[in-house]
Amino acid sequence: MADSPELAQAIAPPADSAAATGDLNSKETINLLVGHPSARLFPLTTLEQHFSRTLLNPPPLHERDRHILTYGPDQGQYTVRRSLSNYLRAVYDIQGEWTEEETENLIVTGGASSTLGEVLKRCTDEKTHTIVVEPTYFLVGGILEDAGFSIDGNEKGGQKVFGVPWLSEEADLAGSVETLVQSLTNTDSLPPRYQAKPTSRLLPRAYPTAPPPRRLYDFILYLTPTFSNPTGLTPPPSFSLDSILGPGLRVGWLEGPSPDLVAQVAQSGVIKSGGSMGHFNSTVIRQMLMKRAVDVPVLSQLMMTYKLRAGALERAVARNLPRGSTLLGGKGGYFFYLGIGSESDNVDADEITTLAREEGVIVLPGSACMLGGRNGGRWVRLAVCYEEEKRIVEGVERLGRVVRRWYEEHGKEWAVDEEKAKVEEPRILAMRYEELVPPVEKVNRRKRAKARKAEEEKAAREGGEGVIAEGSQKLASVPSGGAGGAAASSGAAEEEVGEGEVKEEGKEEEKEEKEEK
Amino acid sequence: MADSPELAQAIAPPADSAAATGDLNSKETINLLVGHPSARLFPLTTLEQHFSRTLLNPPPLHERDRHILTYGPDQGQYTVRRSLSNYLRAVYDIQGEWTEEETENLIVTGGASSTLGEVLKRCTDEKTHTIVVEPTYFLVGGILEDAGFSIDGNEKGGQKVFGVPWLSEEADLAGSVETLVQSLTNTDSLPPRYQAKPTSRLLPRAYPTAPPPRRLYDFILYLTPTFSNPTGLTPPPSFSLDSILGPGLRVGWLEGPSPDLVAQVAQSGVIKSGGSMGHFNSTVIRQMLMKRAVDVPVLSQLMMTYKLRAGALERAVARNLPRGSTLLGGKGGYFFYLGIGSESDNVDADEITTLAREEGVIVLPGSACMLGGRNGGRWVRLAVCYEEEKRIVEGVERLGRVVRRWYEEHGKEWAVDEEKAKVEEPRILAMRYEELVPPVEKVNRRKRAKARKAEEEKAAREGGEGVIAEGSQKLASVPSGGAGGAAASSGAAEEEVGEGEVKEEGKEEEKEEKEEK
Repeated sequence: MADSPELAQAIAPPADSAAATGDLNSKETINLLVGHPSARLFPLTTLEQHFSRTLLNPPPLHERDRHILTYGPDQGQYTVRRSLSNYLRAVYDIQGEWTEEETENLIVTGGASSTLGEVLKRCTDEKTHTIVVEPTYFLVGGILEDAGFSIDGNEKGGQKVFGVPWLSEEADLAGSVETLVQSLTNTDSLPPRYQAKPTSRLLPRAYPTAPPPRRLYDFILYLTPTFSNPTGLTPPPSFSLDSILGPGLRVGWLEGPSPDLVAQVAQSGVIKSGGSMGHFNSTVIRQMLMKRAVDVPVLSQLMMTYKLRAGALERAVARNLPRGSTLLGGKGGYFFYLGIGSESDNVDADEITTLAREEGVIVLPGSACMLGGRNGGRWVRLAVCYEEEKRIVEGVERLGRVVRRWYEEHGKEWAVDEEKAKVEEPRILAMRYEELVPPVEKVNRRKRAKARKAEEEKAAREGGEGVIAEGSQKLASVPSGGAGGAAASSGAAEEEVGEGEVKEEGKEEEKEEKEEK
Repeated sequence: MADSPELAQAIAPPADSAAATGDLNSKETINLLVGHPSARLFPLTTLEQHFSRTLLNPPPLHERDRHILTYGPDQGQYTVRRSLSNYLRAVYDIQGEWTEEETENLIVTGGASSTLGEVLKRCTDEKTHTIVVEPTYFLVGGILEDAGFSIDGNEKGGQKVFGVPWLSEEADLAGSVETLVQSLTNTDSLPPRYQAKPTSRLLPRAYPTAPPPRRLYDFILYLTPTFSNPTGLTPPPSFSLDSILGPGLRVGWLEGPSPDLVAQVAQSGVIKSGGSMGHFNSTVIRQMLMKRAVDVPVLSQLMMTYKLRAGALERAVARNLPRGSTLLGGKGGYFFYLGIGSESDNVDADEITTLAREEGVIVLPGSACMLGGRNGGRWVRLAVCYEEEKRIVEGVERLGRVVRRWYEEHGKEWAVDEEKAKVEEPRILAMRYEELVPPVEKVNRRKRAKARKAEEEKAAREGGEGVIAEGSQKLASVPSGGAGGAAASSGAAEEEVGEGEVKEEGKEEEKEEKEEK
């Protein structure tokens, strides 16, 4: 499935799709598969402000930084990593004193995909196995195979990938892995080494209730299950800020458990030669973090938009899918994982996926989220990031019709759960996304100056001047219209290089405004 | 050497170095090693204009494009590749009708280093050998080793890398390779497969006099020798436009010999998942190509600057290095390759490099450009891209003093070639770079608007409105102040998506100017 032409087409929706143009009444196929943000949600004007500012007034550099346009340091700009470490303290609500090691444990990357490739290249060898929690990201297989891993694991010897079933966010992951290790050591003479994305440090942060992994593994690849988002934030801080601001920017980060292991990745031949991927763009994004231009105006709107869509999807599933259906997710992230009907109904999600496409709705079958395309049972993945609320609801209705027909054709009793279906729209839905996110439009400089001024006045009313308090604040998990929004970047790093700059730029801004008048 | 702490320090010059600040009288160590452009030469304001334009007025998309901020198509934006194919026609002076295949043979990448990594990952296996022409790029070893190649080639079996000595740009490369293949097949049971960077199509373009390679190899890795630039352009179109505009942008391209082979690379797991690296930034650079904002204002100034520096270095070498010294390069690119003294003088370039560092000038010894750090004889690599002309001359003088002392200590006769040393400064040097490239300064919006207007008026005087003629023009190899500069992007692609846009944007620009008044 992961290589079928239909899938290839579905993950490359046309640039003029309804999701891009915002045509809510379009009759075209509804794409609940693709994990892209709707084009309308990209913060073009905010990005423009910060690209422009960064190039015209390059930020002061730390002695370990390089010029914003030259080859970046292998781990990425020091100031970027320092701001990022503060941002992560805020996201994960980390208490206690900031330490230099938090910055040293970070690498600025070119996004999660290429990072995973680099990690596999630098941290695995021909004796390494990798364990992946299923259901997983459906395009991870190609990255593992390029790194020399055999997905089906049937060959004797060589690098293998093993799937561990996801149990729950609180489940004992270490226990599941250990059972697997045990069975491996009984059947295979290879030493039980488990290496991949070094997120063991992050694991306890994200899953405070999970027991710490035992010392058996050098480190653990923890690919978040496809519908899960441990932080409860929507959208997630998914190791790639650009998946919020715009994946085309190709900027992400990797947090390792120790500076040694991080350096092992940063010493990749590709990085030593070309410098940190995403060097310039990460500098721009850092400026945005410093000015609270990510969390308040962008992230809070996105979170609200996705929350509205997620709520609409949940209600549509309750009204249109048969009794016994299970919906996982919705606490953040871009995806839900939907088990259709009761387990005993034996729904074949691959078959449903094919029928749904004919009915004009594309979903990802669970088999695509299993390693090697193994049986995904009654499960499908549904995205809330790409289509607008109205079309998501229509997509679920189309899916419901297909499932109903399948039930009838297979002689199974079809009924919705009447109690669940009665749930009313929550009050929050009185606010529509149109009020939250203005549509994309061509803006000229005049309009932009006005918009920026209004934005700054609003920011000033709400939290004063963009000057950042010491210490860290937690990101609000459900923002209320931007008020009380979170401090994106805070603390020690800004004392060194930030504050002066914020004030200075503020003045320059004022002068420009006057000149334009 | 390639891993020494001294080298690591030298290739990471501090952000406030003389080359960054433009302090010509600085007493600090002169760095003739590093292959970065001087910070002063980055076109900050030009880039700002185009980042701003692209975000505020996103370009029209081809049906095979994606939104500028979402995940890019695997091969990169179609419009970007189409403009690039026209640009390459101009650079290589390709005649004949443009074909769709020229676009299909291109991938937009994240720069040369990561591209080489992807190619090795996708196009080699455990039975593949790679042949590298020496002297080579000194950081290529790490990329090859990460891909599983053994550099020293002593192990039996496994993937090996072999060096082929560079003879001359016209030499029979295929012949040298074949000799190597012969010796391999005699001593090794592996089948002679040779795969790496698929540039065999480009090889005849760049080296029209070289015989086409025989069908013995699937394709050939042709890493241009470290001092060589087959096009004769300064700086080279080195598969990464960003090494001209700013390496921190992380944008390059790969041209393959056939769409099949290109697709094989583009199907990399990392690319299928994250989309084309450099997606957004390549869209911006394409806009710059369309508006002739790369070749006329940027490239021509850089070419002139580097040409002045290269001339100064040549004269300084003639005046300060002993008779018999050989200087290769200078026809383009960032580097010269200098053989110190006559071969019979047996100069040890490693030793000279160490002494030179003590004297305050850093050069790269030839051994670093040989695979596995093998003996590099009397050769050193000298860069003209990083330090200013005056400091390059002083650097060569310091090197000359070191060499003279070495000659005296080894009881060898030291003398310059008086005839060569007499060469006068060519007239072109009457123009200093200060007149050509204004220093970087903080610019506000008002100044920027004025600067842009002046630039556009100049462009209008010189070639009319940025409207692009059909067909392709060759890039002038030595520009005369921008007049008659080259058409960066031309032909069919722009007919489809370009012209309308150029005109429309022109109007909008005008309106903005009025509003600002």
